[in-house]
Amino acid sequence: MGVYLDHAATTPMLPEAIDAFARAMHEVGNPSSIHSAGQDARRRLEEAREEVAASLGCDPIEVVFTSGGTEAINLAIKGMFWASDATRIVAPEGEHHATMDTIEWLATHEGAQPAWVPLDSDGFIDTDAWTEAIGAGDAALASALWVNNEVGTIEPVDALAAAAAAAAVPFHVDAVAAYGHLPIDFRSLGVAALSVSAHKIGGPVGVGALVLSRAANVVPIVHGGGQQRNVRSGTQDVAAAVSFAAAASAAVRALDSERARVTALRDRLIAGVRASVPAARLSGPEGELRVASNAHFTFPGAQGDSLLFLLDAAGVAVSTGSACQAGVPEPSHVVLAMGRPAAEASACLRITLGRTTTDADVDAFLAALPDAYSRAAQAGLTTR
Amino acid sequence: MGVYLDHAATTPMLPEAIDAFARAMHEVGNPSSIHSAGQDARRRLEEAREEVAASLGCDPIEVVFTSGGTEAINLAIKGMFWASDATRIVAPEGEHHATMDTIEWLATHEGAQPAWVPLDSDGFIDTDAWTEAIGAGDAALASALWVNNEVGTIEPVDALAAAAAAAAVPFHVDAVAAYGHLPIDFRSLGVAALSVSAHKIGGPVGVGALVLSRAANVVPIVHGGGQQRNVRSGTQDVAAAVSFAAAASAAVRALDSERARVTALRDRLIAGVRASVPAARLSGPEGELRVASNAHFTFPGAQGDSLLFLLDAAGVAVSTGSACQAGVPEPSHVVLAMGRPAAEASACLRITLGRTTTDADVDAFLAALPDAYSRAAQAGLTTR
Repeated sequence: MGVYLDHAATTPMLPEAIDAFARAMHEVGNPSSIHSAGQDARRRLEEAREEVAASLGCDPIEVVFTSGGTEAINLAIKGMFWASDATRIVAPEGEHHATMDTIEWLATHEGAQPAWVPLDSDGFIDTDAWTEAIGAGDAALASALWVNNEVGTIEPVDALAAAAAAAAVPFHVDAVAAYGHLPIDFRSLGVAALSVSAHKIGGPVGVGALVLSRAANVVPIVHGGGQQRNVRSGTQDVAAAVSFAAAASAAVRALDSERARVTALRDRLIAGVRASVPAARLSGPEGELRVASNAHFTFPGAQGDSLLFLLDAAGVAVSTGSACQAGVPEPSHVVLAMGRPAAEASACLRITLGRTTTDADVDAFLAALPDAYSRAAQAGLTTR
Repeated sequence: MGVYLDHAATTPMLPEAIDAFARAMHEVGNPSSIHSAGQDARRRLEEAREEVAASLGCDPIEVVFTSGGTEAINLAIKGMFWASDATRIVAPEGEHHATMDTIEWLATHEGAQPAWVPLDSDGFIDTDAWTEAIGAGDAALASALWVNNEVGTIEPVDALAAAAAAAAVPFHVDAVAAYGHLPIDFRSLGVAALSVSAHKIGGPVGVGALVLSRAANVVPIVHGGGQQRNVRSGTQDVAAAVSFAAAASAAVRALDSERARVTALRDRLIAGVRASVPAARLSGPEGELRVASNAHFTFPGAQGDSLLFLLDAAGVAVSTGSACQAGVPEPSHVVLAMGRPAAEASACLRITLGRTTTDADVDAFLAALPDAYSRAAQAGLTTR
C-alpha cells in the first residue's frame, strides 16, 4: 500500500486488537449459553464491556454493543423517538448520513418533525439556535455529533448538553469521530446516549457501542433473544468485543501523545498546502477546536474527485468527504451547511492522519499535490 | 474444553475461516472509499459476496450482509411489512424469537395483524392451515423457519413457498438452522428473502446475510450511507465477509459427507439415550425429515436446567433449547406449540452435533446421562 491519509474512513487495526481477535477466534461458546463454555464466553465478553466502559467513562451496564456506529446511531435516534410521545427531533445540519437519513426516514414514515439547527462558517453548531430549538416545544430527542467527520470541527458538546438537560430533552451524542481523539467522560457529560465505532480507533470493523444511560429509554430496532438488557438482540460477538476493548484501552492510553504528534504532522501538512497551492482554503476552525487528525481544504476550480484520482495515481489515498456515501461524488452537505457555494462543496479534499502516519507520508502528499491540483484545475476548465 | 454438544448455539470456527479473518485484519481500506485501498477492499468484499451467493444458489447482488441472523430476520420482516400496504403477517408458532418478537413488536407498535399457524406434534407446520392463512386476505408477508432450531424438524418449505407464490405474498425463509445442513438453492426456491448466519456454519459471529430477491422490496432498519443497494447502511465488514465466505464454501463442500457422518453419530446417541433412560421421549420427527445434527428429548420428572447443570459438571455442554433467550430458563415455546404440557416443555435437552463431534463425545454424553437424569429426577421430586 502507498501513503494512506484517509484514517477517518477507517484506520489500520492496532496489533493489540488483531492479537485479541485472533486468540478469541479459537474459543467456542455463545455467551447466552448457561453451560461452562457459554459462561466462559460471557466472562470474556463482560470483561471487554468493562474495558470499553472505562475508555468512555461510563458503567459497563451502559455499554450496548452494536454492529457499528451506524447501527448505534439508528438505535439511539429511532429508539428514543419511539419511546417518546413527542414528535420533534432537534439536530444540526451537517450531521453524518446515519443521523440525517434516520431522522428523514422518521419524518416521512413515522411522523417525526425535524428541527434542523444551522452551522456557522467554521462548522460550529449555533448554540443559541440549538437552545431555542430545544425549548420551542416538546422534543422526543436531540442528536448532534461531537466532532464533524468531514471538516474536523469540535462542537461545544457541553453547552449543547446543558441546553438539553435544562429542557429535559434526551440528548444523543454521535462521538464516532471524537473517540480516540478527545477524552470522553460519559458520566460528566450527563447525556442520555453516545455512539462510538471500533474501527475508527484501531479496532475491528463490524462492532461499535451505544452508551445508554440507565435513565434513557429506547425501543429496540433489532428484536429477538433479548440479549443486552433487551435493547439489542442477536448472538453477542465476543471476538469483536475483546478486540474492540484492546483497541479502546490502547487508544485512550496513547491519546495525549498521539494528539501532540499528529497535530504537529497535520499543521505541517496545512502549512505545506498553503505554501504550494495558495488558492486552497482550509475548511473548519484552526487550533484547539479542530480535531488533531483532520485537514480539509477546498481547491477552487478543481473537482474533489479529480484531485482524489490524481493523488491516488501518485500513490496517496485521501477522501473527498465521508466514505459513507457509497462512492457517489456529490457536493458535501457539510460544506454547503457552512454557507459555501456548491462549486466549493464539490472541490473538497479531506486528509486525515492516524497512528501510522509519518513525516514521510506528509512529504509524499505535499510532493504530489501541486501537479495533481494543476491537472485537476485544468480538467475543471475543460469540462466547464 | 470438555465435550461440546451445543453446536446449534454456536459451532467452532473452521480453520479456513480463521485464516481468512486473520489475513484480512492486516488489510486496510473502507470498501466505500474510491481510492485504490478502498477499491481493493471492495474487490475482496465482492469476491466474498460471490462465494456466499454460490453457497446459497443466488446472485451476488441478492446477498445483503448483516450483523447476523437476528438482524437479517428483523430486516426481512420489518422491511417487507413497511414496504407493503397490507397489515397481515402469516407465520407459524414455534418460530425463533427473532421472528416472534419482531412480529409481536410490529403488532403492538405498527398495527400488524399476525396470523399464527399451528404446528403438529412433530413440529411440522400445518400446510393446510398455512395455505388458508395466506389466502384469508391481503398479507404483507409470510415468514417461516426451514429447520426448527430447537427440535430439528425440517419444514416443507417448498409447499409453503408454493402457497405463498400462488397468493403473491412475499415469503421470508429463516434458514439459519438449515444452512450448512441442507442444500439451499434460493433460485429454485422462488421466495422473496432468506436469512442465514455465519457462526452456525463455522464462520465468525457478527455476520450473516439476508438474501433478497430483486423483486422484493424492503424498507431498511438501519439508515445511513446507503451501502448495499441502500438496504443496509454501515461500513461494510470485509474481514467478516471473507471469513464467512471461506466457511460457506467449506460447509457446502462437506455437506453430504458430514450429513452422513453426523447422522450416524446422532442416531447412536438417540439409541443410547433410549436404552439408558427409557422414559426419555424424542421430540420431533425421526429419519429424513429431522436435521442430522439434532437430538431433542424430554426427560419426564427432570428439569431441563438441572440436567444441563449436572451434565456440565460432568464436562458435557448441552442446551435446554435456544441460546437466544438470554439465559432465562422458561418452558420451550416450541414444545408447547407441539401440544405438549408445560411440565414436558421444561424437561427438555437439546443435544446438537457438529463438525468437531466424535464418537468419544457421544460416549461421554451417554456415560454421564444416567446419573445426571436420576439426580435431576430426584431433585424434581424434592422440589415438587
